[in-house]
Amino acid sequence: MPTIDLNCDMGEGFGAYQTTTDKEILPYITSANIACGFHAGDPATMQRTVELALENDVAIGAHPGFQDLVGFGRRNMAVTPKEAYQLVVYQIGALDGFVKAVGGKMQHVKPHGALYNMAAKDSSLAEAIAEAVYHVNPELIFFGLANSALVEAGKRIGLRTASEVFSDRTYQADGLLTSRMVENALITDQRQAIRQVMQMVLNQRVLSTEKLIPINADTICIHGDNSTAIALAKAIHRALKEANVEIKKAGRFIS
Amino acid sequence: MPTIDLNCDMGEGFGAYQTTTDKEILPYITSANIACGFHAGDPATMQRTVELALENDVAIGAHPGFQDLVGFGRRNMAVTPKEAYQLVVYQIGALDGFVKAVGGKMQHVKPHGALYNMAAKDSSLAEAIAEAVYHVNPELIFFGLANSALVEAGKRIGLRTASEVFSDRTYQADGLLTSRMVENALITDQRQAIRQVMQMVLNQRVLSTEKLIPINADTICIHGDNSTAIALAKAIHRALKEANVEIKKAGRFIS
Amino acid sequence: MPTIDLNCDMGEGFGAYQTTTDKEILPYITSANIACGFHAGDPATMQRTVELALENDVAIGAHPGFQDLVGFGRRNMAVTPKEAYQLVVYQIGALDGFVKAVGGKMQHVKPHGALYNMAAKDSSLAEAIAEAVYHVNPELIFFGLANSALVEAGKRIGLRTASEVFSDRTYQADGLLTSRMVENALITDQRQAIRQVMQMVLNQRVLSTEKLIPINADTICIHGDNSTAIALAKAIHRALKEANVEIKKAGRFIS
Amino acid sequence: MPTIDLNCDMGEGFGAYQTTTDKEILPYITSANIACGFHAGDPATMQRTVELALENDVAIGAHPGFQDLVGFGRRNMAVTPKEAYQLVVYQIGALDGFVKAVGGKMQHVKPHGALYNMAAKDSSLAEAIAEAVYHVNPELIFFGLANSALVEAGKRIGLRTASEVFSDRTYQADGLLTSRMVENALITDQRQAIRQVMQMVLNQRVLSTEKLIPINADTICIHGDNSTAIALAKAIHRALKEANVEIKKAGRFIS
Repeated sequence: MPTIDLNCDMGEGFGAYQTTTDKEILPYITSANIACGFHAGDPATMQRTVELALENDVAIGAHPGFQDLVGFGRRNMAVTPKEAYQLVVYQIGALDGFVKAVGGKMQHVKPHGALYNMAAKDSSLAEAIAEAVYHVNPELIFFGLANSALVEAGKRIGLRTASEVFSDRTYQADGLLTSRMVENALITDQRQAIRQVMQMVLNQRVLSTEKLIPINADTICIHGDNSTAIALAKAIHRALKEANVEIKKAGRFIS
Repeated sequence: MPTIDLNCDMGEGFGAYQTTTDKEILPYITSANIACGFHAGDPATMQRTVELALENDVAIGAHPGFQDLVGFGRRNMAVTPKEAYQLVVYQIGALDGFVKAVGGKMQHVKPHGALYNMAAKDSSLAEAIAEAVYHVNPELIFFGLANSALVEAGKRIGLRTASEVFSDRTYQADGLLTSRMVENALITDQRQAIRQVMQMVLNQRVLSTEKLIPINADTICIHGDNSTAIALAKAIHRALKEANVEIKKAGRFIS
Repeated sequence: MPTIDLNCDMGEGFGAYQTTTDKEILPYITSANIACGFHAGDPATMQRTVELALENDVAIGAHPGFQDLVGFGRRNMAVTPKEAYQLVVYQIGALDGFVKAVGGKMQHVKPHGALYNMAAKDSSLAEAIAEAVYHVNPELIFFGLANSALVEAGKRIGLRTASEVFSDRTYQADGLLTSRMVENALITDQRQAIRQVMQMVLNQRVLSTEKLIPINADTICIHGDNSTAIALAKAIHRALKEANVEIKKAGRFIS
Repeated sequence: MPTIDLNCDMGEGFGAYQTTTDKEILPYITSANIACGFHAGDPATMQRTVELALENDVAIGAHPGFQDLVGFGRRNMAVTPKEAYQLVVYQIGALDGFVKAVGGKMQHVKPHGALYNMAAKDSSLAEAIAEAVYHVNPELIFFGLANSALVEAGKRIGLRTASEVFSDRTYQADGLLTSRMVENALITDQRQAIRQVMQMVLNQRVLSTEKLIPINADTICIHGDNSTAIALAKAIHRALKEANVEIKKAGRFIS
């Protein structure tokens, strides 16, 4: 039986700035990537979000990013692999404090924004991040872009990895995402997004802008920041259920 | 045989701002309180300091403070007990990331600056901090001002506690420190400082500004930020050795 | 003809966190207090908000607060008067950069949150803030709580001052606001709020919880952070218009 | 008579972290580039440094950098030209608050670290920064790397510019600095540094790694962060004096 994990970024508020959609998206996902204080997330938000994930039986993961709150961690920063290692260790640890305090267990780590995108293409950065995860806890699952340097680095370091795929982004022949700079990067038609998900999950294939290519889909990135995104999340969830796909936390089936 | 722990704040640089005395003081202490990124300490400094402590066989503790880098965590902030709980959980977790990454073990937690001083007098704040420590790891030793609300709260919560005493501060009849606002708050004569240490360690007594009072001395606060402080640290270390006091990590004798 | 200014805090987003109500409230106010980067507001938000105020012919003021983004500047901090002076100079200057860049002119300064509340009761803090304003530009109008140390300090320093009154807060016999800790601190009935405004503006009187007391009303604090607040703002605006009160920027009538 | 300005970065401490060499270097320079709170510098440090410059009759300039305190503004960040514009406006304004508060006048702006280096090669970034300076105050002198996009952008925008040269860095045939990645990037011999300075100041030429090339030297970058740097500063100052070079604030001779 095909199995898939659905992950979503959460707890990305800060102080007085809070999003209200986290609760709405929780019933449709299995893994939450929780911001750790650098690109978003303060201690109070982190505690609330960890508790919320636990209450909804959603697996908890750290979502470390660059220390660039004003840029929401979306701006590339020229960090060394060593600096990347250190900021990931710090943020996983900080979130783990809350996970332990509520008696939970961390399942995974997924880098955020520019850190994720840079490391997807840069082996030494990816390896530094994977090593940070491994050193803090080798049992953690490493979430990274399918076919990217992130997943490769995770495997090389000895971590379990989950290949992340996107419902709303088109793919290139090399198995990577079409750059957002390019016109057809986004899939805005919900039916097309669902079709892409089903093909990836059931056939481990995706129709790139050129041809059908193999892709390993362990976890789908779900957005929950507005009502359109939540509608898509529900539609994906329903389509997977109807196709008898098992929707499970990565920790239950990734080996 | 009387036993004592010697603790010192460490890793209190930030980014390009680094102190150079940490290495000099390490041979004379048994426990290091390492800044965790809020009042001081960034990920790189934290990693280096954790490694330095391990290399010198000095026990590692978290030194959480207020999120007030510009004020070095020394300015009182009106945080709720809940906020104090959250900022302590976050910072212990963050440091623990580095401790785990190097294969070490955290021994203790000592709050910093204004957080320490406020909680020494405020039971609900002290209890929130102690609870944070307990929830993250009930094996941690809680370092707090002797005779203060901190030590009481630690005991009430169920933590092992270490009563901290000072060589260079005078005491009041209630067993607490003389306020720095008052003239005779500081002991600047090295021989007097040594005398006070020996009396506290050997007789569990201190001559307050009024009379001899009982005090529980488990750990002595050592400063290492300038050459005078380092000289005092060496003198205390030597005097204790000569008096056959065992100088040991708190974790080896606190129960 | 009675004249009043209507002020509202604006530009209190940060980076990716943006409020959407600033545009809605602008037609109903005459003075905008713009966050300057410490409790809220980043350079991009500040530029946009300055431009928005200019487009709507709303006077621009600086809204400096404590450097406590996670607490939104609402938590008391034990700053010295000198530190308060410095953080106010810095923030006025920073906002003035944008005001100058767009060819505008700053009208006023209104401290934010905990800085405002602490200084309302603390003469030395109030004086340090007023001095900061005066030193940067003695033409600026100082907005402060009616009957408080803020207004007194502003006058003593030689600034023009605008006494701020509230439509939705009750007053004590000393002319100050009822503490939010007390039950009847808030006025939630819109008609009662309007009545209080009209009495303050037309008669320079307010019915405190004990008796009718004199109050100087130069500017009314308007909230714009949700639809109820905006409805109240519109209602106040309409009631003042109907009573032939001139609604004008403070700079046009404060001397 | 040849004339030159000597500039030095100053006020680059933060909170409890303070350098002590600013006072030592002041007698040997004519222009101070003062950090504005993003890569270094807090309100208290800024005020002290502005006062120090005034007391020593040293011209005051803003030294804006990336909002990356932990990286000291030395790490490249992928900001848009618009973001660069905004962070420069903010920081010039903030420093100008203090300059006005003490009754002084700002002379110039020199970008810091990675912002300086990136803009030296990127015309659109350089232009955004120059435009920010111009919009805040068109009288300000724009300090930029000789022969770089910074100086060009400044001229294009309509600012007076000062071409900055270095005593301790080698030059390439294109008139730009040898990258620090390359072996012979630094000049560590003091006599060679002095020779390079004299040739640039007296002959407006520099011996690049390949041939003698023209260079416009308006201001020399002086370092003051350690005793070797201060010794070099003194030596440069003395050599210039002996050669009858006028050492003057840029504002006194740049047109």
